[in-house]
Amino acid sequence: MQRLPLKTEISSFFDFDAHVGAEAQFTGQIQNVRPLAWGGFLILRLPNYLLQVVVSRDALGGLIDTLQPEMTVRVKGKLAAAKLKDKALHPGNVELQASAVEVVSAPSVHPLPVDTTKKELAAAMHTIFDLRPLTLRHPRERALFRIQSEIFHGFAESLTEAGFTRICSPKLVFTGAEGGANVFALDYFGRPAYLAQSPQFYKQMMVGVFGRVFEQAPVFRAEKHNTSRHVNEYISMDLEMQLEESWLEIIRTEAFFLRSILSRLPSSCANELSLLDVKLPKLDDLVLLELSEVHEIVYRESGTDCRGEPDLAPEEEALVCKHAAEAWGSEFVFVTHYPSSKRPFYAMDDPDRPELTLSFDCLFRGMEITTGGQRMHRAADYEAKMRSRGMDPAPFESYLQCFRYGMPPHGGLGFGLERFTARLCGVDNIKSCSLFPRDLDRLEP
Amino acid sequence: MQRLPLKTEISSFFDFDAHVGAEAQFTGQIQNVRPLAWGGFLILRLPNYLLQVVVSRDALGGLIDTLQPEMTVRVKGKLAAAKLKDKALHPGNVELQASAVEVVSAPSVHPLPVDTTKKELAAAMHTIFDLRPLTLRHPRERALFRIQSEIFHGFAESLTEAGFTRICSPKLVFTGAEGGANVFALDYFGRPAYLAQSPQFYKQMMVGVFGRVFEQAPVFRAEKHNTSRHVNEYISMDLEMQLEESWLEIIRTEAFFLRSILSRLPSSCANELSLLDVKLPKLDDLVLLELSEVHEIVYRESGTDCRGEPDLAPEEEALVCKHAAEAWGSEFVFVTHYPSSKRPFYAMDDPDRPELTLSFDCLFRGMEITTGGQRMHRAADYEAKMRSRGMDPAPFESYLQCFRYGMPPHGGLGFGLERFTARLCGVDNIKSCSLFPRDLDRLEP
Repeated sequence: MQRLPLKTEISSFFDFDAHVGAEAQFTGQIQNVRPLAWGGFLILRLPNYLLQVVVSRDALGGLIDTLQPEMTVRVKGKLAAAKLKDKALHPGNVELQASAVEVVSAPSVHPLPVDTTKKELAAAMHTIFDLRPLTLRHPRERALFRIQSEIFHGFAESLTEAGFTRICSPKLVFTGAEGGANVFALDYFGRPAYLAQSPQFYKQMMVGVFGRVFEQAPVFRAEKHNTSRHVNEYISMDLEMQLEESWLEIIRTEAFFLRSILSRLPSSCANELSLLDVKLPKLDDLVLLELSEVHEIVYRESGTDCRGEPDLAPEEEALVCKHAAEAWGSEFVFVTHYPSSKRPFYAMDDPDRPELTLSFDCLFRGMEITTGGQRMHRAADYEAKMRSRGMDPAPFESYLQCFRYGMPPHGGLGFGLERFTARLCGVDNIKSCSLFPRDLDRLEP
Repeated sequence: MQRLPLKTEISSFFDFDAHVGAEAQFTGQIQNVRPLAWGGFLILRLPNYLLQVVVSRDALGGLIDTLQPEMTVRVKGKLAAAKLKDKALHPGNVELQASAVEVVSAPSVHPLPVDTTKKELAAAMHTIFDLRPLTLRHPRERALFRIQSEIFHGFAESLTEAGFTRICSPKLVFTGAEGGANVFALDYFGRPAYLAQSPQFYKQMMVGVFGRVFEQAPVFRAEKHNTSRHVNEYISMDLEMQLEESWLEIIRTEAFFLRSILSRLPSSCANELSLLDVKLPKLDDLVLLELSEVHEIVYRESGTDCRGEPDLAPEEEALVCKHAAEAWGSEFVFVTHYPSSKRPFYAMDDPDRPELTLSFDCLFRGMEITTGGQRMHRAADYEAKMRSRGMDPAPFESYLQCFRYGMPPHGGLGFGLERFTARLCGVDNIKSCSLFPRDLDRLEP
């Protein structure tokens, strides 16, 4: 039996500034190496830090000439104050003057198939995706996914603060929530099962339990279109909540978590934002436009007549966002009152105009990032609406039971992590905001 | 266009103690109702709070007699200090003296199929699962999943603090990570795809990117055994990290997040712990036993001879946990050095005893809750080991490429959320620690 004394502290963010003048040792991967006449520089990739290491020929001979990107090295030396040019790469003004460099492991291919030391990745998108284990090591890719990780975290933190309970709903389900054919099917011990397109049914059931719930988990859509706006597996950040007075509480909650995410990024991701040149949006008073108003604006501004259409075309989304930014200074637009015919059966119709729903999409910088709305909460309403659509309620009984047991008025939303990351960071294709994107042609790596 | 003034504050944890004497209004579901001669009590379920509401016949006539569990009501009245007997149900010493009660919605079935107002749910497990939208409303179920939500949160918080980056890896994958037949297959646009059994390959690739990564996501196992220790979909909390010196850093990291989770529960879940009578374990010095030592202990204590077996039987897990608690005062046991033949191909063999691996399981209160270890990090080692096992490396190329591009020494672990919740809260069957469990017979709700 071995007793391992408990160290509660594991090495975490090393405080470089506080250790100027001290001896230190780090293990990391070489992001870049620049040999010069007097020696050279290594840029060492540590968890959450890029450290400049000075390797002089006086101290270490010709060692610098043997070092290559993506080697793992253990470096020892003294930390020194420094004036580093590339602020985006270096959180601190500290470098390490190496007294020893030991190679721990090395790549087995030379040269690497893509050069990750250049300012931009010079490769086609499919190559970038094929070589994800390498291309993600590029500083811009790392920055993008550090920001994404922080968005994920900010969503959870802000909702937890606001009394929401995290739930984990099943992804193997007995029926597709949204209906339609865009669902992956599989054999589950001899029975048909499906991959969840959304946690919709489950988060509603859980409102009856906790009042306010959220989830952050993959969803699966067997959509056959290959566009810059779609991936077949993505992270849906969902919330569902009982309503006190009005369905607008859902929109206010979106504003609450957006603001919380945006306010934490400047401190948690300062270097990443700077490297990607991200301009954070302001979120002041919320702009709400009914769908019909958006069609009118688009008609007025562009002459394109989509009035009467039940949804927005991508071009309309772009145009109304541009308009809202210019006219009202808002980069977020909440489009409301989609027609009942185009929304799922569980949507709550507007009591004053039953052909419309108490629903919304949130557009941000030209793209829909959120879909939400109030849901019906009475069992009889579900049955009536399902029958009016030619749906048999029977197969949905294990979901519909929650309404028979009593449900409060409630609503919620789904917020796409990849889409928001893309719009925030100015990335054109949301596939690039998925670590390992899944599309019609891609299941690897 | 409607402008909605931004309220950053959404109603969150209402500070009941600070509002004694004030008028207030709440919407919630009736957990329980107790009519008495002078009026009666409602227990109202609010997000994160159970509020006692006093409904007098003087003020509201016979209203109390019409109220039923699971109705949603809006109550108005004055908050008053109170001495409440059932501390587990009431975080504060405050009740509401109702001046008005309005029924917002009501169950459509009477009586409800299971009585959630009793101290325990009196129903068979399959009924409890069939009626999840109702049975989860029972205070004990709510407490269990509030604790689970906090465990999830604590894992993420502690690792984020320690410089780990959250990743979201795909669940639709091109190959099963662990090998074997226990994998769900599906058709992905004409190609075979699988549901991820673990994020193993992806978290390793991401160590090359961020050094330290974690994930909390569903995994899928098509295991055909129906036991109290298995579900077919569960939440795997995974981490993977580069190693500075030793594979024991992985075990230290587990101790770090366990300690962090255990230290936050008493404040965040005080009432829930009290309701479920949870005794939190202490985590002092860590107890490490080699697998062969465990077999010896079991042999000595029980006479059962499993010496030479490559794994632990459930009875051995129980026995060694009991022994460790008595002999060394530890409820956690780290069993190390499993034989190479029983660990996946990516496991790092012990350089001194190559028939064993630098791997471990963590046992807690009689059950394995974690599997982890160091992984190989050189491409040539992967190819050699795979070939020695008769595996063709070619289909794994999109994973193996990460080692060709250079990888640091690394390792990690997978920690089962449902299993840990079960052992912590004294729940016998881990299915009961899944909101909507999936097993051989169950895909609904």
